Amino acid sequence: MSAERILLSAPGWDSELWIGELEKHAPGRDIVLETDGATDPSIRFAVVWKQPEGLLSSLPNLKAIFSLGAGVDHIFKDTTLPDVPIVRIVSDDLTARMSEYVVWQVLDHHRNGPRYRRQQQNHSWGETRQQASADDVTVGIMGLGELGRDSAAKLNVLGFKVTGWSRRQQDVDGVTCFAGPEGFGDFLASADIFVVLLPLTDETRGILGLETFRRMTRRGPLGAPVLINAGRGGLQVEADIVAALDEGLLSAASLDVFEAEPLGKDSPLWEHPKVTVTPHAAASSNAARLAGPIVEQMKAYDRGEPLANLVDKSAGY
Amino acid sequence: MSAERILLSAPGWDSELWIGELEKHAPGRDIVLETDGATDPSIRFAVVWKQPEGLLSSLPNLKAIFSLGAGVDHIFKDTTLPDVPIVRIVSDDLTARMSEYVVWQVLDHHRNGPRYRRQQQNHSWGETRQQASADDVTVGIMGLGELGRDSAAKLNVLGFKVTGWSRRQQDVDGVTCFAGPEGFGDFLASADIFVVLLPLTDETRGILGLETFRRMTRRGPLGAPVLINAGRGGLQVEADIVAALDEGLLSAASLDVFEAEPLGKDSPLWEHPKVTVTPHAAASSNAARLAGPIVEQMKAYDRGEPLANLVDKSAGY
Ligand SMILES: NC(=O)c1ccc[n+]([C@@H]2O[C@H](COP(=O)([O-])OP(=O)(O)OC[C@H]3O[C@@H](n4cnc5c(N)ncnc54)[C@H](OP(=O)(O)O)[C@@H]3O)[C@@H](O)[C@H]2O)c1
Ligand SMILES: NC(=O)c1ccc[n+]([C@@H]2O[C@H](COP(=O)([O-])OP(=O)(O)OC[C@H]3O[C@@H](n4cnc5c(N)ncnc54)[C@H](OP(=O)(O)O)[C@@H]3O)[C@@H](O)[C@H]2O)c1
Repeated sequence: MSAERILLSAPGWDSELWIGELEKHAPGRDIVLETDGATDPSIRFAVVWKQPEGLLSSLPNLKAIFSLGAGVDHIFKDTTLPDVPIVRIVSDDLTARMSEYVVWQVLDHHRNGPRYRRQQQNHSWGETRQQASADDVTVGIMGLGELGRDSAAKLNVLGFKVTGWSRRQQDVDGVTCFAGPEGFGDFLASADIFVVLLPLTDETRGILGLETFRRMTRRGPLGAPVLINAGRGGLQVEADIVAALDEGLLSAASLDVFEAEPLGKDSPLWEHPKVTVTPHAAASSNAARLAGPIVEQMKAYDRGEPLANLVDKSAGY
Repeated sequence: MSAERILLSAPGWDSELWIGELEKHAPGRDIVLETDGATDPSIRFAVVWKQPEGLLSSLPNLKAIFSLGAGVDHIFKDTTLPDVPIVRIVSDDLTARMSEYVVWQVLDHHRNGPRYRRQQQNHSWGETRQQASADDVTVGIMGLGELGRDSAAKLNVLGFKVTGWSRRQQDVDGVTCFAGPEGFGDFLASADIFVVLLPLTDETRGILGLETFRRMTRRGPLGAPVLINAGRGGLQVEADIVAALDEGLLSAASLDVFEAEPLGKDSPLWEHPKVTVTPHAAASSNAARLAGPIVEQMKAYDRGEPLANLVDKSAGY
């Protein structure tokens, strides 16, 4: 058996950067991009983002899979997944980045960023008559996990009222919490701006569609609700978002994730005057900050300690 | 002598709105827009924004002047000002609004808002390679008063490092504080993004000019420093801002205030690709929220209690 190696499989990522950072923390282990033959006994740990179908099940000694992001839907796409623990990213660094994005986009809508930018283009000076204050506005967070809870806390600090929705009932300081399908209707009627930080699972796929938008009944300072999706593109039905914007069910949308990424050149979202597009950049995994914690978990495993941040496979996240 | 009246002099403001809100809190007193003759003994309190020259000195029984905003430079423009106390707005509502604006603009630069908007126009997908995290960035706050301190605290919560500058040495949690002309150079060398929340006084007029920009020597994740001015237009030399942007001394500017307001149709700032213009809207005085506290102070005065939030006339703010 050859020396122990760690497999990195993240097509499209800057592999050199990640190898460099992982190696800093894993002296004596090789970080490799390719397996050593069809079945490779030297690999016990795989670090992945959208790994090729079948790759992981080919490794006879695989002990754990590490997702390079907080989400794991990209791993579950592989229908041949071996039965080993899956560890995802939970990191103050990643969480803080997501909250930056969320607060930024909430404020951009609340403070009429799109309108002021149009005015600037027209050299036109015009204040907002009686601008609402943050405490006039309720932000509803779909997904009260690691990311949702931190965004909620930071929005609270800025003065926003916050509601939230999760699978199981949660209890979060400063947040009016709703849960499950039973609580979904009341949740949807509770907020002016919706921030989506759900994982993509069988239960959540396509949840951001017309049926949901019709139940967002508040008409706040901005008019109809605003949708901000930084979860996953598979949560949203893009044709329905366009229809909801055009019918006035939604007043604006900020989308960081898309049904297909990169977003196709011909998507109507690019030019829709009420849509803000960012290129899946809300919270990027930072090699320098995340490589250490990933390798730490491998070392903990080798000391016989339990792995942290394990994915619940039955729930799918 | 006629019944007691309160003078409201705020040309260009929505006087009806303000009269309505002031009346709610001052039953038995009339809120009037005009004095009763050249000298009007019925007026003891004046509530003003850019009142006409000479108006206040014509009132023989004037006891106190109330500014409708946090700043008072608009009052001091009147060279005939009578020697009565001047009260300015200090209010959680106004402060929270300013912090919304500051956090919004800081994040818009930090998170590459202008670039992503250009990309969207071009239907172009492109992530920021290794986006900096908030804790890679230092925000320098010019003016550590009511507004500056709250902005600092909220930027801290989001992870930014914060430095600050004031006239007298201050001690603010989470902020590296500099003071006076002695501390100005070190302060200017300390930050990547500068947020200006200074009052306009003889000492601060024109402080945002080339000489200052040349001393902003940090070259952070965004390149040259970013300037965000929500203080007063008189603090800035607009020709110098354009020159600094074009020479690369500054990488971008968000300006809410201007040498002349409304900003002239022909100003080069409107179309400058590195400038974000908002129409003096960072923190508007909200009638419903501020009328009560203003009238409360008049009542306190009548009970013989000291006035709060007094302006230091020798300092000019
Ligand atoms: N755009 C980006 O750059 C980016 C970056 C990182 C992550 N993300 C996305 O953000 C997601 C959330 O990350 P996280 O770390 O916060 O995940 P997490 O800690 O697992 O939290 C997920 C939350 O969603 C709730 N949820 C799951 N299924 C649900 C359902 N069927 N109905 C109602 N609520 C449901 C969970 O409910 P319980 O509390 O009951 O478990 C939990 O509150 C990731 O899965 C990923 O897709 C995007
Ligand atoms: N754009 C808008 O919508 C808007 C809305 C509201 C207010 N404003 C502007 O914001 C300004 C600040 O409001 P505020 O309530 O925070 O005022 P403040 O409480 O009086 O604070 C002013 C700060 O500036 C500092 N300062 C004054 N002169 C200075 C000098 N020569 N050198 C260095 N520092 C100096 C003061 O130093 P010390 O701490 O030593 O006193 C203090 O820290 C107002 O004056 C107004 O012009 C703009």
